Amino acid sequence: MGPRHGPPHTPPDVPEIGGLTITNGRTILFSVGKGEQTREAILVHALRLATKLGFEGLTIGRLADDLELSKSGLFAHFKSKENLQVQVLEMASRRFIDEVIKPALSTPRGERRVRALFERWLAWEASPSLPGGCPFTAASTEFDDRPGPARDFVVKSQKDWLETIGNTARTAIQEGDFDPDLDCEQFAHELQGIMLAYGHASRLLKDPKARARAERAFDTRVQSARGATRTTSHTGARRR
Amino acid sequence: MGPRHGPPHTPPDVPEIGGLTITNGRTILFSVGKGEQTREAILVHALRLATKLGFEGLTIGRLADDLELSKSGLFAHFKSKENLQVQVLEMASRRFIDEVIKPALSTPRGERRVRALFERWLAWEASPSLPGGCPFTAASTEFDDRPGPARDFVVKSQKDWLETIGNTARTAIQEGDFDPDLDCEQFAHELQGIMLAYGHASRLLKDPKARARAERAFDTRVQSARGATRTTSHTGARRR
Repeated sequence: MGPRHGPPHTPPDVPEIGGLTITNGRTILFSVGKGEQTREAILVHALRLATKLGFEGLTIGRLADDLELSKSGLFAHFKSKENLQVQVLEMASRRFIDEVIKPALSTPRGERRVRALFERWLAWEASPSLPGGCPFTAASTEFDDRPGPARDFVVKSQKDWLETIGNTARTAIQEGDFDPDLDCEQFAHELQGIMLAYGHASRLLKDPKARARAERAFDTRVQSARGATRTTSHTGARRR
Repeated sequence: MGPRHGPPHTPPDVPEIGGLTITNGRTILFSVGKGEQTREAILVHALRLATKLGFEGLTIGRLADDLELSKSGLFAHFKSKENLQVQVLEMASRRFIDEVIKPALSTPRGERRVRALFERWLAWEASPSLPGGCPFTAASTEFDDRPGPARDFVVKSQKDWLETIGNTARTAIQEGDFDPDLDCEQFAHELQGIMLAYGHASRLLKDPKARARAERAFDTRVQSARGATRTTSHTGARRR
């Protein structure tokens, strides 16, 4: 989505890039001149900020200060703080699909795919581009009591994510890896808990065992999902 | 802790209660006239606000507006937003000890006590006095990237809580309810995950099955903690 309106009252001698006014020479990042690239670069920075400050701390003013862009230009771009929040969440969601879901879906169906999903998620949570951890974890507690488009987006994306876990568990039933009686929604719910506990232990408590604990909790859960079907190693590499 | 300074520039005909200036007649809540009661009533309201708006949204200005108290009086009381946050967290912690930990510790040692701890925690999370859910869940994601006394307090109280769960699990080993090889810290970590997933499902997703899912996840975890020791009903009521 490109800019829809130029900023009002822009002096004619100030360069404009994608509706954004460059206020000084240091804004090298945005000198490429493509509206879409500018917008993406702003959102990348905004996402980093949101993971550290929370989405409420992500204001157009703070973003303008950080990037040395004009506040009026950013405002023309994003219209409101709420719209900025939603656009950041949308970008985070696209990245999550690209970095976690798509690669996992390209692995063989079954327990191996469940494991790939989990491992990709752990890598996402620890990604250097998300200095404050998973933005959806932050957004989930920030927006749970605040009706509006940001909350709606978080709810939808979290439901989609739980459904993806549940559907992946279903492929493990179909492949004979998991017990046919497994409640895939319960499995997805419990995996979400393992992930939230990992974020809590690693981000807040700085527990050096956080990752090992998450992996162990996951292994235990997967083992019980297998039920009576198999009692083989949990590497998932035994079949192919 | 009582008030240490009266508000500056208070007109002599305006009543003062515990260092707080009553700005109009509607502030019935604070007419009792005891500094400690005033402070407690302010903190009760501040805690409600924090669970809904987050701790960053909890400003002295917002609190003054809500309670129709003078901002300068509140400021004299709490000195800074950060100190207000810490005092609210301290009060939440005292309440958590009174409502969750103490009653659970008065039940018989063993699996029954573990179960009491979990059930009290579920009740706490759904308490009408916490309209936005557990304040420590909110504080955990809000403060994880913000060094300072509020973060320090949250880290300490969350570590204490995990230790309480671990110690309670240890009583269940001593009573012969749980497997002697159980890793009590891992058990506490996983229980934390079950609780975080419950908050996520009930608060954000409004999932009507949230509680049933939490209870089922807990039962599965307890069952596996029993290991080979017993295979009896999980009501925990079989022995006494």
